[in-house]
Amino acid sequence: MEELKVLIETSSRHLHLSQEHLEVLFGSGAILHSKRALSQPGQFLSEEKVSLIGPKRAIDGVSVLGPVRPDTQVEVSLTDARTLGVAIPVRESGEVCGTAPIKLKGPAGEVSLPQGLIAAKRHIHMTPEDADKYGFKDKETVSVEVPGERSVVFHNVVLRVSEKYATAMHIDTDEANAAGLSGEVYGKVIK
Amino acid sequence: MEELKVLIETSSRHLHLSQEHLEVLFGSGAILHSKRALSQPGQFLSEEKVSLIGPKRAIDGVSVLGPVRPDTQVEVSLTDARTLGVAIPVRESGEVCGTAPIKLKGPAGEVSLPQGLIAAKRHIHMTPEDADKYGFKDKETVSVEVPGERSVVFHNVVLRVSEKYATAMHIDTDEANAAGLSGEVYGKVIK
Repeated sequence: MEELKVLIETSSRHLHLSQEHLEVLFGSGAILHSKRALSQPGQFLSEEKVSLIGPKRAIDGVSVLGPVRPDTQVEVSLTDARTLGVAIPVRESGEVCGTAPIKLKGPAGEVSLPQGLIAAKRHIHMTPEDADKYGFKDKETVSVEVPGERSVVFHNVVLRVSEKYATAMHIDTDEANAAGLSGEVYGKVIK
Repeated sequence: MEELKVLIETSSRHLHLSQEHLEVLFGSGAILHSKRALSQPGQFLSEEKVSLIGPKRAIDGVSVLGPVRPDTQVEVSLTDARTLGVAIPVRESGEVCGTAPIKLKGPAGEVSLPQGLIAAKRHIHMTPEDADKYGFKDKETVSVEVPGERSVVFHNVVLRVSEKYATAMHIDTDEANAAGLSGEVYGKVIK
């Protein structure tokens, strides 16, 4: 089977909002304004930004990704969590049950989330075509080797296959910095 | 040869000061006051703290490690460098030629360092006894596998052998967070 080199993209701290929370933070009838498209089809970086208010410190200017989702979810690095003063779990997107609370502040109001603050578990989005071609399955766990001065192998990388995806690996800023990533970097996927 | 499991210690942002810079920052005749001993013999965390003034933002409350050294050196994570607004190289301790500039601010004065701001290259301090026992040499490059939910293998780990050392691996906070380290963690050293 051919070896897959996957594009590695770094996710900065960001959040996804429900329509309800979007309107509390930005006003009744608010919508998200796309600043630029992201690699995953239909997803975009919006113009809207909120503050995360932690028990220790706040982090301002955190980007909202669109479109809106059924549930609000905030994804930060473990470095950010220490800045905010909260302990957070590493979770797959959507698995927010029992995760950390956080307060959000926008220009029109505040939302106190009882849960929804996570560090994202590193993962690979993959098209069904690439999964077939390279012999991978949805929900499989793989390792990814990153070259360079700070070369690392990331174990426990969860692979998600969907026709809604483009093939790319997502890691957070701590992981990107630990691997010394800069520019367009590809990692070797190891079964 | 027996397999070495090495204690992994996380270095938070910190700096080493020359006596000259210590006196500029803390006043004439200033000395460092030990708060607690570090794992490396003779090294200590001092009570003294300074601010790092970057072109974008400042980071306050950065600990000075003692004792004083011939040259001032500031070690931060790549996340910190982005906060400060500077691009910094990954370097071994002491190799500060051509590294990034940074301004330091203490209670008695300021120092503008023309260079000396680095991200520390991950490394293992090792006693000659352990080097003999496990078959390692000074300046050798090894890999270290860290277990856990965010399990990683760190490649390009430089090994330094000296009778002045205790055996321990040092990584920065980005690397510790990328590996999900918490509490006392040991890594497997791989040749």
